[in-house]
Amino acid sequence: MSDDNTDMIQPFSDEYFMKSAFQQAINAFEKKEVPVGAVIVSKNKIIARAHNLTEQLNDVTAHAEMQAITAAANHLGSKYLTKCTLYVTLEPCGMCAGGLAWSQIGRIVFGASDLNLGYRAINPKMLHPKTELIKGIMADESSALLKQFFQERRSDS
Amino acid sequence: MSDDNTDMIQPFSDEYFMKSAFQQAINAFEKKEVPVGAVIVSKNKIIARAHNLTEQLNDVTAHAEMQAITAAANHLGSKYLTKCTLYVTLEPCGMCAGGLAWSQIGRIVFGASDLNLGYRAINPKMLHPKTELIKGIMADESSALLKQFFQERRSDS
Repeated sequence: MSDDNTDMIQPFSDEYFMKSAFQQAINAFEKKEVPVGAVIVSKNKIIARAHNLTEQLNDVTAHAEMQAITAAANHLGSKYLTKCTLYVTLEPCGMCAGGLAWSQIGRIVFGASDLNLGYRAINPKMLHPKTELIKGIMADESSALLKQFFQERRSDS
Repeated sequence: MSDDNTDMIQPFSDEYFMKSAFQQAINAFEKKEVPVGAVIVSKNKIIARAHNLTEQLNDVTAHAEMQAITAAANHLGSKYLTKCTLYVTLEPCGMCAGGLAWSQIGRIVFGASDLNLGYRAINPKMLHPKTELIKGIMADESSALLKQFFQERRSDS
């Protein structure tokens, strides 16, 4: 492999799947939704894709993660996601962390930290004790997209 | 009014609406769901009724409160429930408390405490700071129904 390829994203890596979650966040942005996206992966395959839809559905519970949990459970025919990984562009809030805990999801990979509204500000032990946590994947891009969204919203109003 | 009426439930009291939430819990029990029920009230009118459906929907997010939030927002055409009261037979979990916080619900009245899985064990300040909290309404009945459910489930297995 040549040196040119050192920045290439490896298939099935966390960066690879986070790119799909980030694409979901862009889809949200284009619908004027707070741009947060998520995918759930089982056996190296994406089984659920979702992005925030709280405005369009007029429903505070329609966060990307909550929809992804429901879709993945539906796909698997099991309400427990012990062998799945959630990729989400922003640290989950308390509601989503609670839902993820109930799902017993195997791994969570999140992008940007949310120091104010993220679950760790409520209680860092909210997740299921068996859930592995990875953070900071594509954090800068996810954070920049959120900043752009809120800047545009402020200049609109 | 005669003395015979001292135990009568006053219309539009917290006990009155909690009775409807308890009826929802009984509906859940009859479907072999963990018996938790909820209603949301706006201007003395029930605008959402729901009970736990996690087994039937195969979805850990299908708690009574989450469904009630979605239904009430849909009814009102507003995702914020600042002038509403949620009645729920059991203390909300972290997921539901997080959803209720996002909804900015005006009041929460719950029945039985859940010392292990209730939101207060995670962080008692999870609710929205403006949400008024009342607890212990029909706590004994709600707790007894849950105990009966888990006893029957244990003897089934």
